[in-house]
Amino acid sequence: MHWLERVCTTMEPLREEAMAAARERLDVLTKPPGSLGRLERLAERLSGMTGEMPPALGKKAVVVMAGDHGVCEEGVSAFPSAVTEQMVRNFLGGGAAVNVFAKHAGADVVCVDMGVAAEIAHPALLVRKIGYGTANMTKGPAMTPEQAERALQAGVELVERLAGEGYRLLALGEMGIGNTTSAAALTSALLGIAPEASVGRGTGVDDAGLARKRDAVARALAANGLTAGGSDAADRAAYALEALSKVGGFELAGMAGVCLGAALYRVPVVIDGYISTAAALAASFLCPLTPSFLIASHRSEEPGHGLALDALGLEPMLALGMRLGEGTGAALCLRIVEAGADVLGSMATFASAGISGQLPVEPGE
Amino acid sequence: MHWLERVCTTMEPLREEAMAAARERLDVLTKPPGSLGRLERLAERLSGMTGEMPPALGKKAVVVMAGDHGVCEEGVSAFPSAVTEQMVRNFLGGGAAVNVFAKHAGADVVCVDMGVAAEIAHPALLVRKIGYGTANMTKGPAMTPEQAERALQAGVELVERLAGEGYRLLALGEMGIGNTTSAAALTSALLGIAPEASVGRGTGVDDAGLARKRDAVARALAANGLTAGGSDAADRAAYALEALSKVGGFELAGMAGVCLGAALYRVPVVIDGYISTAAALAASFLCPLTPSFLIASHRSEEPGHGLALDALGLEPMLALGMRLGEGTGAALCLRIVEAGADVLGSMATFASAGISGQLPVEPGE
Repeated sequence: MHWLERVCTTMEPLREEAMAAARERLDVLTKPPGSLGRLERLAERLSGMTGEMPPALGKKAVVVMAGDHGVCEEGVSAFPSAVTEQMVRNFLGGGAAVNVFAKHAGADVVCVDMGVAAEIAHPALLVRKIGYGTANMTKGPAMTPEQAERALQAGVELVERLAGEGYRLLALGEMGIGNTTSAAALTSALLGIAPEASVGRGTGVDDAGLARKRDAVARALAANGLTAGGSDAADRAAYALEALSKVGGFELAGMAGVCLGAALYRVPVVIDGYISTAAALAASFLCPLTPSFLIASHRSEEPGHGLALDALGLEPMLALGMRLGEGTGAALCLRIVEAGADVLGSMATFASAGISGQLPVEPGE
Repeated sequence: MHWLERVCTTMEPLREEAMAAARERLDVLTKPPGSLGRLERLAERLSGMTGEMPPALGKKAVVVMAGDHGVCEEGVSAFPSAVTEQMVRNFLGGGAAVNVFAKHAGADVVCVDMGVAAEIAHPALLVRKIGYGTANMTKGPAMTPEQAERALQAGVELVERLAGEGYRLLALGEMGIGNTTSAAALTSALLGIAPEASVGRGTGVDDAGLARKRDAVARALAANGLTAGGSDAADRAAYALEALSKVGGFELAGMAGVCLGAALYRVPVVIDGYISTAAALAASFLCPLTPSFLIASHRSEEPGHGLALDALGLEPMLALGMRLGEGTGAALCLRIVEAGADVLGSMATFASAGISGQLPVEPGE
């Protein structure tokens, strides 16, 4: 974990000077103070992330990381594992929901094979394959600690590469049949909550499927000695790495790496549903500065998602009842994030517009 | 009201055939059924509005209607009346929040003077001035019934004109110092709720200002004989026109007309905060088919806003705690609406993408 400690100690917090400048600007722009609500805090935070006031956001991408899960043997998903590969091909062909939303967001889709259980060759696919699907976590660790570290590293390096190519705002999504079960186990392990509170219906299992998922999560935690809850762990980072490797997934660890990369390279990342949020939660245990560089998009129907967002201190922007994943919710927020940042760059001030904005008004005047 | 009856009887409901085709398509697209949440119902409704599957949305505009309010004499706003004119000039100069958000939405800003208490000459301003500010509603009617009708007609005609120019998706906002007081009085009159439930802090009055606003609304309702609640009125349309003229505003009546125009010309309109929602509520009393063609963007901090949205049967998309008006919340939703519609036009189906989407999965397979 030497490289991981280096990542964490290299990270710097939000730049206070840029945030102070943003606050000052927000108060003289032609709008009642605070009237843009949480968009104002977002604009301030974007200044702190980029260190610039106004924050300059360049090219946008939706990063979609894919991987397969051994736990699918337990009948936890409404879809067969083969759908992971098929959906990756759909992303590459431009036919998925995330492609449509990325197009409307003016963002590129960057598809990454972190561990799909099939060979996929496509010029646009980034292959960072750590393995051909994880092992069944109900019977032992899903990954080795080395695999989890390699996946984390791949995520960090991806942000470095994208930043080098001029990307300055990312949305983060995933594809992996079985991965809401993995996300639930990871959230249970990190927050110390029972499977009843962390497991939902995912892409749409019935009551029997929900019972199988809860049972699979309980058995995965027990088989891997992870029932304690990482918040109380003496070494939260070590515990999170252990949990990530034992009940996580290749794409979950890759996404946790993207979150670390966000903070390291100061590139704001909009997280999506339960799975990317569970990955972000693991990243926040690994390096506590991480959540400052993350933006929540929506609250999915999965019950554990809200708990993970609360633990990260992030509040979502959209209320649409979505539960698709792929980065769809995050993609829908990219234009809103840009608009929020641009408030600082493009709005007139009371002085420049000649508006009697700060005059008090007396009753009956 | 002959023309208004004609408008209402000419309106047609959502096209059931296009909605059925949308539902059928939604179920074979490469995503778990229902996983896009309320965006799926929106896509279906957009098909019903336009009569097309997929719905074709063309050019976009944010319509911002402005007017002044005699009730400002009662000290109900944190800003002086002169700010209405100044902000209209700011919209025309491109320096307001709505300009920034419209730019990111790829939408034009269409600014309409419905009744600002000043002469504003600008090539981009549409002048539909009904008067130079309304009368003080605490002392009698804010407008005459004829003025309210002319404002309504101007709104309907504006949608006809914009539709003729190729606009197929509108956001609806406003500017008018004092108009949250007018919106609260209108909402109280239509829903039969007390000023305590309909009046909030608007752009940011203090406790004393809040008390003055509540008192002004109570006195306006009493002075105009409007305490009953229009939901129980024998003739809801006649009662709504009465309420709109007595405690509404020129821009409120104009916006109600835009909502009627939305339904008449089948152009989806995204409403914004409390004021445009109160106008939409009045329109729904005038012609009950109207809300089918409206889309809610966000729930502002004003307490009456949620009640008005509930009465319209609309659920907002954004949760950002905004309370600015101008159409800012509606503008932020335009790209989301387009993306939702485009799901029907651009996503692959399970069959076309070769995905084993509808295979059942057995436990342990």
